[in-house]
Amino acid sequence: MRVLGIDPGLRNLGWGVIEMAGSRLSHVANGIIRSEGDTLGQRLLSLHSALTEIVAHHVPDAAAVEQTFVNKDGAGTLKLGQARGIAMLVVAQAGLTIGEYAPNKVKKTVAGVGHADKSQIAHMVRHQLPGVELAGPDAADALAIAICHAHHLQSAGRLAAAMKGAA
Amino acid sequence: MRVLGIDPGLRNLGWGVIEMAGSRLSHVANGIIRSEGDTLGQRLLSLHSALTEIVAHHVPDAAAVEQTFVNKDGAGTLKLGQARGIAMLVVAQAGLTIGEYAPNKVKKTVAGVGHADKSQIAHMVRHQLPGVELAGPDAADALAIAICHAHHLQSAGRLAAAMKGAA
Repeated sequence: MRVLGIDPGLRNLGWGVIEMAGSRLSHVANGIIRSEGDTLGQRLLSLHSALTEIVAHHVPDAAAVEQTFVNKDGAGTLKLGQARGIAMLVVAQAGLTIGEYAPNKVKKTVAGVGHADKSQIAHMVRHQLPGVELAGPDAADALAIAICHAHHLQSAGRLAAAMKGAA
Repeated sequence: MRVLGIDPGLRNLGWGVIEMAGSRLSHVANGIIRSEGDTLGQRLLSLHSALTEIVAHHVPDAAAVEQTFVNKDGAGTLKLGQARGIAMLVVAQAGLTIGEYAPNKVKKTVAGVGHADKSQIAHMVRHQLPGVELAGPDAADALAIAICHAHHLQSAGRLAAAMKGAA
């Protein structure tokens, strides 16, 4: 089963794909989409095209995105919302549902602590996906989100199996 | 020349199309897209599909959207940003550029005052587009944005003509 993680941003959108076989995770690909264009419309169009290509190429079975950090910077939140809308649209257009995880949930799942910093996240992503070469911090975050979603799907699968066994 | 105005929202997205012939404006169509689905992804997908159909049907030459009101409600701003991202993507996918206007600029252009309320906006939209039947307040706002953009395009056209005459 292939899981796509997305770390949305208007200028740089991180993405990462992992393969889950039972409880074993392995790296497939990761990268950063740098949006192009002078206008907001062009940037959104370029994000949409590039992410659609990645989904068509890697054909994920599941996808997840970080619950955006909402703060008092309204203009920043609005920009992030616009990029996030495009990411969620691409996933929905591929017929996939999307998992959403709070940043501290992702950090806790991947690094064991909810307040891990970017370098700790990258370190633990490298540890859990041996041999991975990270395109950058946004791509590491995207892989961390994919790992978090994979753990959630495993737990949900075990729960379903246990309930089936108990029935 | 046909101008599309959009008032974006995640649940209700207002739209309106007007025709501009010289300085004369007339109503073409207006409506409200009510997004469907249980998940955010499904709602964004439904907004994208419906707005894409409207653009394909009415074939506007220009489009405009209100500059979203950004306040301290971060979660609300994020939702609005996601819907706005979809609206701007649809317009960019149709090869159009998009004008952006602050709410008080739209109100001042249409109603003469920057602090006009919703009923005053609807009243002035009816006055400027005789015979129009409004689908609701969001559709009235979308038509007001289209009128504002039409006025801007007329002024820009007159300016270009004057500069050409002076050259």
